[in-house]
Amino acid sequence: MAGGSGTRFWPLSRLKSPKQFLPLIGDQTFFEQTINRLHPLISKENLWVISNINQKTALESSFKSLAKEHLLLEPIGRNTAPCITWATIKVLREDPEAVMVVLPSDHMIKDTDAFQKTIQEAIETVKKEPETLVTIGIHPTSPHTGYGYIQTKSNSEHLNCHSVIQFKEKPDLETAKNYLKTGTFYWNSGIFVWKAKTLLSALERHLPDLTTPLYSIKKSENETKELEKIYPTLPKISIDYGLLEKVPETIRMIPAKFDWDDVGSWSALTHYLEKDKNNNIIKANTLTHNSQNNFILSNQKKIITLCNVEHIAVIETDDALLVMDLRKDQDIKHITDQLPSEWT
Amino acid sequence: MAGGSGTRFWPLSRLKSPKQFLPLIGDQTFFEQTINRLHPLISKENLWVISNINQKTALESSFKSLAKEHLLLEPIGRNTAPCITWATIKVLREDPEAVMVVLPSDHMIKDTDAFQKTIQEAIETVKKEPETLVTIGIHPTSPHTGYGYIQTKSNSEHLNCHSVIQFKEKPDLETAKNYLKTGTFYWNSGIFVWKAKTLLSALERHLPDLTTPLYSIKKSENETKELEKIYPTLPKISIDYGLLEKVPETIRMIPAKFDWDDVGSWSALTHYLEKDKNNNIIKANTLTHNSQNNFILSNQKKIITLCNVEHIAVIETDDALLVMDLRKDQDIKHITDQLPSEWT
Repeated sequence: MAGGSGTRFWPLSRLKSPKQFLPLIGDQTFFEQTINRLHPLISKENLWVISNINQKTALESSFKSLAKEHLLLEPIGRNTAPCITWATIKVLREDPEAVMVVLPSDHMIKDTDAFQKTIQEAIETVKKEPETLVTIGIHPTSPHTGYGYIQTKSNSEHLNCHSVIQFKEKPDLETAKNYLKTGTFYWNSGIFVWKAKTLLSALERHLPDLTTPLYSIKKSENETKELEKIYPTLPKISIDYGLLEKVPETIRMIPAKFDWDDVGSWSALTHYLEKDKNNNIIKANTLTHNSQNNFILSNQKKIITLCNVEHIAVIETDDALLVMDLRKDQDIKHITDQLPSEWT
Repeated sequence: MAGGSGTRFWPLSRLKSPKQFLPLIGDQTFFEQTINRLHPLISKENLWVISNINQKTALESSFKSLAKEHLLLEPIGRNTAPCITWATIKVLREDPEAVMVVLPSDHMIKDTDAFQKTIQEAIETVKKEPETLVTIGIHPTSPHTGYGYIQTKSNSEHLNCHSVIQFKEKPDLETAKNYLKTGTFYWNSGIFVWKAKTLLSALERHLPDLTTPLYSIKKSENETKELEKIYPTLPKISIDYGLLEKVPETIRMIPAKFDWDDVGSWSALTHYLEKDKNNNIIKANTLTHNSQNNFILSNQKKIITLCNVEHIAVIETDDALLVMDLRKDQDIKHITDQLPSEWT
């Protein structure tokens, strides 16, 4: 899944170049890292990418060897349920017995071996129990209020596979703290493994508003036009909320053996970048005086000077400048919500 | 005097376009306002401008009617004593009985009538008592630590002309508070009125290191070259410190009847500019969220966005960006001191 619009990294991330196509950490984009992380677990000809029509150019240039018919471009984003449903229908037409690994393309995972081991386990679980839907859970290290949580039946950390009691939307801080105390809650990574036909049966039962119109799209020259007609009518809903929450008895949660971070904000990104002796991250031609804990990023030639400022992000592109308190960077949505379309 | 390099308004002020040539308040530059403020008190043909060779272009375009021989361009800045000494020698050669009004060209004075009335009084004082040097004092409204002070003999506010006990350099806050309590201290405006020959006699006595080399420069085709040779050898000293402090008995201080502000910093400038409902000064294409008391100034087309920031100056030009805590803006010198010459 590579369709996110990634407004949280505005002004660097834009409709046409969202977070997953930016080399924010290291030389590779998140998308490239995600593709490489799957090698050799999943062969290139079995990869599918589902994204947004706005990102066609970014995608074609960053993944040249992808089979044309495996690049699915949604006309508009309608959250993960429509996206996964359409992809599942397409995959099934190619292989009725397919096992799908569904994963976002903008997460940070450094331990590729552990990642592949966990996914391999999930694939084997699904092959053994083809009626189950597997989700990868992350052992929570803080009472994060920006993630969904999964409540498991047992609090044994040694179990490789958990039964699930329920999914929980983003909690408030008090609730999140209580979750951590019980030891039975995990972060929902958004990484899923299932048999395509098992998922589609469940979707047919619980989200017929999605499956019926998407089934009607036949492979034809008019596919793009049909999608443009149908997509705006689809419910805008996540796979968690639209399906998984309704069928906890069919879910198994496998705890991730790997490190994981969705790097969902400018401040989250700071953990991965080199800092100077004043704890500033400086990726620009910069002069500072008495300034600590700032994040300066610019692709411009101009000189950027900081004087007596702390915890400030200064992010500059050729047409926009963001000056923001890094400690409250979730509020960037109040900026991106107001932006004239020229700058989105 | 229009030679200041005005680093305090960097990055807008530069060597070639310092503060006095910027229209920071209203449509006119400080320099233009200063020239206009003298009309009709001093006729145009009696105006002299002493500035720096770097500012030749800025000057010629902002004051086209100035007589060529009345534009004095120093090869390098050596503070006010060399500048005033050279100008005095030049004026005397034209008129041995000249009365000089010496004034900076980067101050904010709104009440032109009161200004002219005060200067007229000073001129009359000098004509009556040709041996005195007159300085204009400003009744202090706060214990400002950025100004020099003049201690007068009497604390009567009704006196139009005070005898002077001493000049005091920029004090610390405690000292400045004590000055205000006594009622006998005034801010030193840097505006002076005297007979040219009286000043030169005093300079000959107290600063022969200045007068002797400057006398030696004859009006010739080689004047520029001679200045370039001599100026670097001159003491770098202010007229206050180099002369006036040494001859308090010959000084008379006339209290200004006009408003006065040297507008010496970005934060000082904020008092003169229109603010939005969040007390932000915005002179750019800007979007804000929860941001108060900021000063945003840009001549660029890009969008500038502020998120959760307070008391920040964001000043952008085509080659530089300053992000600074407005409440400690005197520290900008630590930035300008480090600047590579490309950006000065």
